[in-house]
Amino acid sequence: MVMQTMQIRLTPGLIEEVKKLVNRGIYPNTSECVRDAVRRLITGAGGKIEVPEAVEVVKKIKKEVKEQFQKPKGTTDFYPEEMSVRNNIFSKLRQTASRFGFNEIETPAFESLDLLTKKSGEEILGQIFTLEEKGDEKFGLRFDLTVPITRMFMEKQKELPKPVKWYGLSRMWRYERPQAGRLREFYQLSVELFGCEKADADAEVINLAVSCLKSLGLTSEDFYVKVNNRKLLQGLLLGIAKKNQLEDLIRIIDKSKKITDKEFKDSLKGIGVDYKEVNKILKCKTLEDAGKLKLNKMAKEGLEELKEVMNMLDNKFIEFDISIARGLAYYTGTVFEIYDKEEKFRAIAGGGRYDKLVELYGGAKTAATGFGMGYSTLTLLLKEKDLLPEPDTGVDYFVVMIGDVKEKALDIIVDLRKKYSVDYDLSSRNMKNQLKYADSVDAKKVIFIGEEELKSGMLTVKDMKTGKQEKVSVDIL
Amino acid sequence: MVMQTMQIRLTPGLIEEVKKLVNRGIYPNTSECVRDAVRRLITGAGGKIEVPEAVEVVKKIKKEVKEQFQKPKGTTDFYPEEMSVRNNIFSKLRQTASRFGFNEIETPAFESLDLLTKKSGEEILGQIFTLEEKGDEKFGLRFDLTVPITRMFMEKQKELPKPVKWYGLSRMWRYERPQAGRLREFYQLSVELFGCEKADADAEVINLAVSCLKSLGLTSEDFYVKVNNRKLLQGLLLGIAKKNQLEDLIRIIDKSKKITDKEFKDSLKGIGVDYKEVNKILKCKTLEDAGKLKLNKMAKEGLEELKEVMNMLDNKFIEFDISIARGLAYYTGTVFEIYDKEEKFRAIAGGGRYDKLVELYGGAKTAATGFGMGYSTLTLLLKEKDLLPEPDTGVDYFVVMIGDVKEKALDIIVDLRKKYSVDYDLSSRNMKNQLKYADSVDAKKVIFIGEEELKSGMLTVKDMKTGKQEKVSVDIL
Repeated sequence: MVMQTMQIRLTPGLIEEVKKLVNRGIYPNTSECVRDAVRRLITGAGGKIEVPEAVEVVKKIKKEVKEQFQKPKGTTDFYPEEMSVRNNIFSKLRQTASRFGFNEIETPAFESLDLLTKKSGEEILGQIFTLEEKGDEKFGLRFDLTVPITRMFMEKQKELPKPVKWYGLSRMWRYERPQAGRLREFYQLSVELFGCEKADADAEVINLAVSCLKSLGLTSEDFYVKVNNRKLLQGLLLGIAKKNQLEDLIRIIDKSKKITDKEFKDSLKGIGVDYKEVNKILKCKTLEDAGKLKLNKMAKEGLEELKEVMNMLDNKFIEFDISIARGLAYYTGTVFEIYDKEEKFRAIAGGGRYDKLVELYGGAKTAATGFGMGYSTLTLLLKEKDLLPEPDTGVDYFVVMIGDVKEKALDIIVDLRKKYSVDYDLSSRNMKNQLKYADSVDAKKVIFIGEEELKSGMLTVKDMKTGKQEKVSVDIL
Repeated sequence: MVMQTMQIRLTPGLIEEVKKLVNRGIYPNTSECVRDAVRRLITGAGGKIEVPEAVEVVKKIKKEVKEQFQKPKGTTDFYPEEMSVRNNIFSKLRQTASRFGFNEIETPAFESLDLLTKKSGEEILGQIFTLEEKGDEKFGLRFDLTVPITRMFMEKQKELPKPVKWYGLSRMWRYERPQAGRLREFYQLSVELFGCEKADADAEVINLAVSCLKSLGLTSEDFYVKVNNRKLLQGLLLGIAKKNQLEDLIRIIDKSKKITDKEFKDSLKGIGVDYKEVNKILKCKTLEDAGKLKLNKMAKEGLEELKEVMNMLDNKFIEFDISIARGLAYYTGTVFEIYDKEEKFRAIAGGGRYDKLVELYGGAKTAATGFGMGYSTLTLLLKEKDLLPEPDTGVDYFVVMIGDVKEKALDIIVDLRKKYSVDYDLSSRNMKNQLKYADSVDAKKVIFIGEEELKSGMLTVKDMKTGKQEKVSVDIL
């Protein structure tokens, strides 16, 4: 290849870096390094320079992994059994939400990055799965349902009769390192109630959350709702801390139960807040206790709201817990979390009032309250309590054909399928193997159809669970 | 900044490109261009070079759009009405699939890029939404369900009793330019049947597709299934074309109905295949016609398979169409597409036998057949035929409170919600506004509760559709 010589001027810093690349053996000489730089600039290839030796090893490892395709780590394959369980649980959640006058909605899987990052803390930002840009549109997979549902609400905010009662029951995504064992794709019931500032709305969503769990067989023996109010907590804390300490202080209180007493004390010391003062607040176990503290206007308002909400709740499920905070930026009034009684698992549900979110996104000021309930923790609790529904994947009837009866048997199958789930052996195996297959796919009953049966019009039906057989007329099936 | 001069040698082609960038005013001189290239190489910035003047305009436009958050183009927000319609249609599809002994499964939204790109043609590659890399995992959003379901099947291939009858009913994503008006997020029923090479399996999935449409009220007046066999078509075409022409030829035949006769002729001329010979094949309207052509072994086998399949189908829905091909790489035997009778819309469903896919992914050789049915085209047809289900979003009962009765009314509501969907005005407005709200959320019946009603135990129930009122005892509600 004929080349032309040209002179360029570089800063010493860049020349230094170029030399390093040459010394590490990535380029044979400085000229080739610069040439590659120009090549990359022109073709738009860009990207990081890879160290050649490492590249080969990485390629080899990648190739080995590639040979066996696997699902992405942190995601779930729902095989028929798991899907049946999920459908069963989801249908109970849907029915319960519907009983409370909530309507289901669904939003796209991805949203503009601007929307997703608007209200989120730093932690969430790193967890968003972003889509590679095509054109100049930047999208990310939704990491919760509240944000996209709020967007949906805003788009029709004016015309919708308020309050608006919606729920979504769908999946979302957060990037987590595969090692962490946490899910990257997870399912959640997300209930949102827009346009009502009354305690009734908070009580409605908490009652719904409780009813959802009850619909799955859980009782007050199994779970409870810890309720608090952000105004009460913040008002009290502003009596012992400065405004600029509040965010850190609430974060520390929020995780107070997950750390040791010493860690808790040290954390408070770290931000310069007095442990004793905080402890005085956290020692409140009842609304009466809280009422005896020095309450500023904000705290008083919060306490009144809390009393009003708790008045409308079934108190055998409810406990006041002044340490429930749920992050600073988001919630403005009532907050709650639901735990299993032994607190073995993470919160089963959590939520509260978020009156500033719609406005933050540029909508008209709108009171809002709601909660999220994760499918994953929920099923852990149900399993623990032996309440996971039995998978139901088997057909009502499996037709076993004996001899040359397929044409007529298929007619019967077409008829049966108008009312029942019916299967037969598409592979036309012998009777023994038909039965084996019927058994392996959990058929509830088997119908035997042979020439004799067709002649008499009486079919033999065998219950696969009890083993009981009976003769049944074709017409009454 | 002090700079050092260095000499580099570039190919004339690269120098040409560098000059172009300078001429377009993107760099003041060649040296600065090369310098920027080196800078980008060192920092790993990479990417395409942007024309500076345009950048400002683009920024301004982006800012304006940003102020109002919108859903991504080509996606759908399902508001309660649309969601209710979708749930209604989905539940009929689910029930029908279940009647045929198919079990629902669900796969993750994204898969490894290696998996997604393994079998796909060039066209699909550009349509995959890829996720930005985190760590060294490369993921893309699934663009169909067949690929991930096949992966799921492979992971348990050995232990699953065959045949395996699965369906997915979920969403998937393809990148399309926003202008095209085509959906980027769309829902599809995907039926897959693994492990049966018999015609029974093909007939089973076609019969299921027909039953799905019948379950929604569509009849043989509204749609029909065009059936063909890839072996028959390919065998016939190999009699008039060379093996290396086959892929192009089938693609041309596949779109023959969407182009003019002249375009069709020109396309054939373009690949050097005789129009008359092709036309002789395409003129076949019945299996008898096809049987009269010169059939090689492959074509004969295909014709036999086709006869066997069609024997098990309800012929009032079925038509033989030799031009149905459905892309080359994928299908191996029976192929079919379902269209509305007037062929106003795109195919409502399409599928067939794909016996080589599992093997291609590294699984054990497995016969497979199935189909996909898109929600979007399906609803277009249902709307056209006035068969779209009515949205059902209103509660069974809306409780209107008169006077100071909330506590007792809430007790009644708790009771009612055990059986019915019930709402009340969380905002405690006056009676007129409670009624207005009840009406706007499509409540079916309204129950009036005042002090008088509580005393007598007799509540007034008003049917919102007929306007009819009746007195009902609290106990029998």
